[in-house]
Amino acid sequence: MRRPAAVVLGLAASLAAAATPASETGLSAEAIRRAVTLRDEALVGSGAWELLRALTVAASPRFAGTPGDRAGVEWALATLVRLGFAEVRAEPVTVPRWERGEEAGWILDPSPRRVVLAALGGSVGTPEPDLAAEVVAVADLEELEALDAAAVTGRFVFFTARMERTRDGSGYGRTVRARGAGPSAAAAKGAVGVLLRSVGTSDDRIAHTGATRYRDGLPRIPAVALSHPDADVLEARLGGAVPVRFRLRLTSRYLADVESANVVGEVTGRERPDEIVLLGCHLDSWDLGEGAQDDGAGCAIVLEAARRIGELPERPRRTIRVVLFANEEFGLSGARAYAAAHAEELTGHALGVESDLGAGRVWRFAWRAAPEARPALDAIAAVLAPLGIERGDNEARGGADLWPLRAAGMPVVELRQDATGYFDVHHTVNDTLLQVDPEELDQNVAAYAAAAYLAAETALDFGFFPPEPWP
Amino acid sequence: MRRPAAVVLGLAASLAAAATPASETGLSAEAIRRAVTLRDEALVGSGAWELLRALTVAASPRFAGTPGDRAGVEWALATLVRLGFAEVRAEPVTVPRWERGEEAGWILDPSPRRVVLAALGGSVGTPEPDLAAEVVAVADLEELEALDAAAVTGRFVFFTARMERTRDGSGYGRTVRARGAGPSAAAAKGAVGVLLRSVGTSDDRIAHTGATRYRDGLPRIPAVALSHPDADVLEARLGGAVPVRFRLRLTSRYLADVESANVVGEVTGRERPDEIVLLGCHLDSWDLGEGAQDDGAGCAIVLEAARRIGELPERPRRTIRVVLFANEEFGLSGARAYAAAHAEELTGHALGVESDLGAGRVWRFAWRAAPEARPALDAIAAVLAPLGIERGDNEARGGADLWPLRAAGMPVVELRQDATGYFDVHHTVNDTLLQVDPEELDQNVAAYAAAAYLAAETALDFGFFPPEPWP
Repeated sequence: MRRPAAVVLGLAASLAAAATPASETGLSAEAIRRAVTLRDEALVGSGAWELLRALTVAASPRFAGTPGDRAGVEWALATLVRLGFAEVRAEPVTVPRWERGEEAGWILDPSPRRVVLAALGGSVGTPEPDLAAEVVAVADLEELEALDAAAVTGRFVFFTARMERTRDGSGYGRTVRARGAGPSAAAAKGAVGVLLRSVGTSDDRIAHTGATRYRDGLPRIPAVALSHPDADVLEARLGGAVPVRFRLRLTSRYLADVESANVVGEVTGRERPDEIVLLGCHLDSWDLGEGAQDDGAGCAIVLEAARRIGELPERPRRTIRVVLFANEEFGLSGARAYAAAHAEELTGHALGVESDLGAGRVWRFAWRAAPEARPALDAIAAVLAPLGIERGDNEARGGADLWPLRAAGMPVVELRQDATGYFDVHHTVNDTLLQVDPEELDQNVAAYAAAAYLAAETALDFGFFPPEPWP
Repeated sequence: MRRPAAVVLGLAASLAAAATPASETGLSAEAIRRAVTLRDEALVGSGAWELLRALTVAASPRFAGTPGDRAGVEWALATLVRLGFAEVRAEPVTVPRWERGEEAGWILDPSPRRVVLAALGGSVGTPEPDLAAEVVAVADLEELEALDAAAVTGRFVFFTARMERTRDGSGYGRTVRARGAGPSAAAAKGAVGVLLRSVGTSDDRIAHTGATRYRDGLPRIPAVALSHPDADVLEARLGGAVPVRFRLRLTSRYLADVESANVVGEVTGRERPDEIVLLGCHLDSWDLGEGAQDDGAGCAIVLEAARRIGELPERPRRTIRVVLFANEEFGLSGARAYAAAHAEELTGHALGVESDLGAGRVWRFAWRAAPEARPALDAIAAVLAPLGIERGDNEARGGADLWPLRAAGMPVVELRQDATGYFDVHHTVNDTLLQVDPEELDQNVAAYAAAAYLAAETALDFGFFPPEPWP
C-alpha cells in the first residue's frame, strides 16, 4: 500500500540554519538537527495514512451531532491515549443538528432528467410533495442584483459561475459567495428556490455541499448545488426554444442541538509548559463523504507530527497542544467553544497552526507574528525549504478554527497545502481515503513536525496582537 | 471546445492497399483513395462530438420506456432526416419498464455510514419500510457455493471481487457474472439481499448499475451495487470485532411494458441496394447517466460516419443501414425486434458492425467472415493501420445488438475501442459528455467511415454462416 518516498537531504539549507548563532534564532544547533531528523524520518514513511485509514473505517462521515460524530470523538480519545499524549480530554461543545433528508431534483423540459445534487447545509426543505418552477439563470450575485424582481418572482434562481482551479485555492473564495448569500438574495426578489452550480473543480458528476446562511426578515427558500454536468445541461437547455422547469424534492430540516466535543491532547513542554503551540484540525466532516481530505487528513497530520515530537529524547521548550475541533463545517462551534473555555489562558497561546486544506504537498510557509520572531521563522523556513516549501510573508490568516484565537491576538503560521486538486472532492461524497496520496501525506507530516518542533523549541517569542473583531 | 487533431498521412500503407489489384480486393484504386480521404478528413474534426452534445442536451438519460427514451427517438428521427439519410423510420419495439425508485443504504456498525449505491436493473424493492440484516462477504459465486446455507440464511451476501482494468475490457466479463447470477445464487442459500462491489474500475465514489437476472423458482431478493470506497469500508469493518449490519431501502418495481422504437436510416447502395452493411449502436441508456459513452458515442460515430459516406460523389455499391437500437441495456429488446421484423431479409445483411464500447480510440480491427472476403478485409486493415489500429483475426463477436443477426449467420466486423477508461464511468451517473474526448471520437469516425465505405464498396462477398443458437 505504502510507496517508498525519496529522502530529501537538503544538507546545505539545514547546515546554513544550524550555522546561525543560537542567540539569534533561539534555537541550538542540536535543535536544528532534531528538526531535520524529524523531517527526514517522516518523509520516508509516517503513520499518518494508517491513522487516516483507521479513522475513516471507524467513523465516517462525522457530521456534527450525528452518531458518526460521536464515534469520531471516541476514536480520537482512544487514539490520543494510545499514541502517548498527555492531558487527553474531550471538551464539551454544543453543535446544531441539521439533517439532509431525502433530496432529488429533475430538469423537466424538454424531457425529464434527474440531476445529481446536494442540499446546501442548513437549507430548508421544499413544500410537500415537491416544488416545480421555471428557472432563471444568472452568473453571480451581481447579475442577480441587476434583474427586475418580475424576472425572478416565482422562479428558481440558477447561479452559473464556475470556480477556477488554482494552487492556492483562491478560486473558492471568489465563487463561494453565492452559496452563502445567494438564497436570501434570491428570496429578496421573490425566488422560490436556488440552484447553484457546485463550487468545485471536477468534471465528475458529483455535487458539492457547503453551508448557506439565511438573512433574517426574508423568506427561507430551499437551496441545492448541482453537479457540473447537470449545470451544463441546464444551461444548454435554457438556451433553447422552450422555458425550462425544475422540480425539487427536499426534506432537509433542523433537529435539536446535540453535545459534541473538541478532543485535546498535549506534549508537555520541558521549560515553558504554560506556553502553548496549538496544532489544530477539525474532526467533523460534511455528511456526504468520508471527511478524508476535509479534514481527516489534517487530523492525521497533526496527530502524527505531535506524536513524533513527543517521542524525541528531549521535549521542546513549550507545550504542543493538539486540538481536534468539533463542527467546523456547520458553524465553527468547536472553535467558538474553545476560545470561550480557554478565555483565561488565551495569551498563553504562543502560536497556532491548523491543517485544513486537504492532503496535497505543503508548498508555502507563512506567518503572522511579531518582527522579533523573524530569525526563528527564518530558521524554520530553511529547514522546510528542502521539502519544496517556499517562504511566505507576514500575512498568514491561519485556518478557520483559529479565527477566534487569531482575532484575540494569537500569532499563527500556515503550512499551506497545494489545493490544485482539493476542490475536486471538497464537500462531496468523493472525499474518501482513496483520494489521499500517502507520499503527499508524509511530506505534510515532515513539514508540520519540523515546524512545530522548532516553534515550540525556540527561546524567541512570537508576540501577541491587539484584539480584532471577527464575524 | 474542439482541439485540432493531427492528420495521419499513412501514405505507404494506403498506397500499398491501392496497389493490390482490384480484381483481388473487389476495390478500385479510386475506392481506396476515397476511403483514405474519408479517414483523414474525419480525423481533423468530425461533427460527431456536436451530435453527441445535442443528443445529451435534448434527451438524457434515455432509459427504456421513459420519456427520455421517447425524446431520444424523436431526436434521432429528426437528426437522421436533417443529415440526409434515406428511408428514415421508427420501427416499433416493445420494451419492459423498470423503475429504480428511491434507493438508500447504510452500513450500520460500528457507526452509521450512508453508502453510495445503485440498484441492479430489474431488482425488486425491499419490504417496507426497509431491510436490515447482518452481512456475510464472499469473493465471488464460487466462494458463495462453498458456504453452508446456515452462514448465509437471513443475511446480505456481499460479493467483494474487484474488476481488473484492461484495454480489451475482458476484466468486465470475468467479474460481471455475480451481477447477473448472484441474487438467485444467494437466495438459494437463504440470503435476504445482495450487495455487490460495483463492476467498474474507478476509485471514485460512484456505483455501477447493470441488469441482474432472477432464476425461476427462487425468492427474488433486492440487489444493489456499492461504490468501491464503500465496499472498501464494509470489507474493513467486517474484519473488525463486531458483526456488521446493513440497512437497505429500495422502492424499485416493474411497470407495464411500453412502446419504443429502433430508429433506422439508409445510404442507398448504387449497385446492390438490397445488400445491407449494418452500422449499429443503441440509443437507450441506463437511467443514471447521460448515456454519453454508453452508447450515445456509438450512435454519434455511426451517424457521422454514414453521413460522410452519403456525401461522397459516388455512393458505395451496397446500402449502408444505420440502426439505432432500442433497449439494449435491459434485455436487447431492439435487437430481438429487429431480427424478427427483418426475418425475410436476414440473408440480405452482408455485414454488421456495432459501436458499443465507449469513445476510446479504436485499436483493433477484427472480423468473422468467409475466407473469400480476406483480400477486401486486408485492404480495409491497410487503410486503418495508420490510425494505430492493429489487425485482428476471424473471431469477432460483434456488439450485443448484433447477436441475433450473427446467430442467424450474418458476418460481422469489430472496430474495437480502447476500453482502459471505459469502465470508470460505465453504467454510472458519471457517463457524461464531459468524459468523452473529441479527438478520440474523431478517430472513431475516421475508422468507421473508412471501413464501412470499403465494406459496402467491395465486390467481394462476406459469406453467410449456418445459424447458431444464442441465449
